[in-house]
Amino acid sequence: MEQNELISLLSKYDTPEISDALDNLHINGACLGIAPRSRNTEITGTVFTVKFEPVSPGVSAKAGDYIDDVPEGSVVVIDNGGIDNCTVWGDILTLVAGMRKLAGTVIDGSCRDLSVISSSDYPVFSKHAFMRTGKNRVRLASVQENITLSGVTVNPGDFIRADKSGVIVVPKHNIELVLEGSQKIHEVEDKIRSAVIGGMRLDEARRTFKYNQPLR
Amino acid sequence: MEQNELISLLSKYDTPEISDALDNLHINGACLGIAPRSRNTEITGTVFTVKFEPVSPGVSAKAGDYIDDVPEGSVVVIDNGGIDNCTVWGDILTLVAGMRKLAGTVIDGSCRDLSVISSSDYPVFSKHAFMRTGKNRVRLASVQENITLSGVTVNPGDFIRADKSGVIVVPKHNIELVLEGSQKIHEVEDKIRSAVIGGMRLDEARRTFKYNQPLR
Amino acid sequence: MEQNELISLLSKYDTPEISDALDNLHINGACLGIAPRSRNTEITGTVFTVKFEPVSPGVSAKAGDYIDDVPEGSVVVIDNGGIDNCTVWGDILTLVAGMRKLAGTVIDGSCRDLSVISSSDYPVFSKHAFMRTGKNRVRLASVQENITLSGVTVNPGDFIRADKSGVIVVPKHNIELVLEGSQKIHEVEDKIRSAVIGGMRLDEARRTFKYNQPLR
Repeated sequence: MEQNELISLLSKYDTPEISDALDNLHINGACLGIAPRSRNTEITGTVFTVKFEPVSPGVSAKAGDYIDDVPEGSVVVIDNGGIDNCTVWGDILTLVAGMRKLAGTVIDGSCRDLSVISSSDYPVFSKHAFMRTGKNRVRLASVQENITLSGVTVNPGDFIRADKSGVIVVPKHNIELVLEGSQKIHEVEDKIRSAVIGGMRLDEARRTFKYNQPLR
Repeated sequence: MEQNELISLLSKYDTPEISDALDNLHINGACLGIAPRSRNTEITGTVFTVKFEPVSPGVSAKAGDYIDDVPEGSVVVIDNGGIDNCTVWGDILTLVAGMRKLAGTVIDGSCRDLSVISSSDYPVFSKHAFMRTGKNRVRLASVQENITLSGVTVNPGDFIRADKSGVIVVPKHNIELVLEGSQKIHEVEDKIRSAVIGGMRLDEARRTFKYNQPLR
Repeated sequence: MEQNELISLLSKYDTPEISDALDNLHINGACLGIAPRSRNTEITGTVFTVKFEPVSPGVSAKAGDYIDDVPEGSVVVIDNGGIDNCTVWGDILTLVAGMRKLAGTVIDGSCRDLSVISSSDYPVFSKHAFMRTGKNRVRLASVQENITLSGVTVNPGDFIRADKSGVIVVPKHNIELVLEGSQKIHEVEDKIRSAVIGGMRLDEARRTFKYNQPLR
């Protein structure tokens, strides 16, 4: 399938559905503790990885320059090791990312300029919010190499889906299987919802539509 | 007093007032770190307890079936040991709980489907939000037995009051004393508010209306 | 410069700009983990310090009386050691502080009465929210002495600026240098924003406007 078609299909499922599909395939893709900071709380796209690492106190380290070369439709996924006390994203990056039609930003760390980001249509998710710059505290270590996001391995080109329940990573090699699984889960849950709205007990609906099938 | 009358009276007081009344009786009822996740941020009702416990990795454990038998007006209080990395409540349970006219849900753990819950009229409070299912991670250990919620012992039939300041448990055997104490505190604070609006200094108002009475 | 003029100038900059200016002067003023709890998320003013300390269980300790003597325009800055499980601020203090035209309240600890505070025009920032009183748990230890706020030393008369990104302290002896530095940073960032809106690459804009100047 085309990349755009895959992204369009993935956007139809919410993160709980996709997480259940990953579970059935024994894939760990759920990134703990990363929450929306922007008005727009939905992301679907392919991963562009960025990794920062701490510098020794007093060592000069400029802000990382990578945003100009991120392809349209990408999700900027930043591994700053979960650090809360300095930031790696702010209002100017939000502006540029929006202009470049990126799909969103996910940070295992902190962002700043919440006054702008909190009402932004460009979606930003992060573990923490603060205002102190990462400049001279962390430096750009790599782009487009494998990183870790809240314990989940993320590769360039993997897929990200994020909503109010949080952030999930779908490995690129499994995307079609995960979409298929998500669709099945979506259908089962739709049937259960319809049945209980129609008056069926939930335990009966779960039995009827095989919600509690064993782990495959 | 009738149960319904007790609930109606309890709903008149906010959690700080009730907490102060519990303090005067040396009762610990304040549940730390459990915050509203839904649009509706008010719960008043009687406790229906649910306890989950972890299963070993790889062991199959289906979702817990209990919701169909919870009596109208109950608050589903779930002890999942404060675990953040899997969920024990979602959109289908929210739908069923609302249809069954339950009073709300309080979770010492995580819920999912925040896209639905965040705009829900059915009140859900939890310690964390995530998207990964508890299915095959935790199993239903008991219903209607004593549990612990953020360090507070909770018995079936106890009373819950929750608002934006958090969740509080009132033991059923003390409910009338607590209502009486809450009413006194409510009156004293009303008098203090009126006095300071009328121009009195706060320290004088506190002395006048005996805000700083010793612990009884 | 007059105090009022300094406050008016400081209110023009957001906390990231001021934080960058402090960075250039090697001053630590960024207070980690203190977030807005009120509708009004902006504070600018001079510090009035309040310090609480724990009392032994069972020891009687009344609520602290200090609010009636806090000068107009002050920010009440409360050091309760980051404690989450009892509160040192609530709705009556919010009412009195608003009537006395204080500039806001910042708490290294918990506040209560979020039902009132969350829709309040009087700005309250805190590390946590809960409902259990500090009465008989903590006592007023000092006012207008040096305190620590999330690891940052704060002196009476220092300046506070707070917004959605968090809380920052500007030492009174450096306020004019910090204002000067904030203005320079504000100008550079404005030029970068205009340039990228005009179509310049961000890396080029940063070079052109010397965003990555070395630490002075």
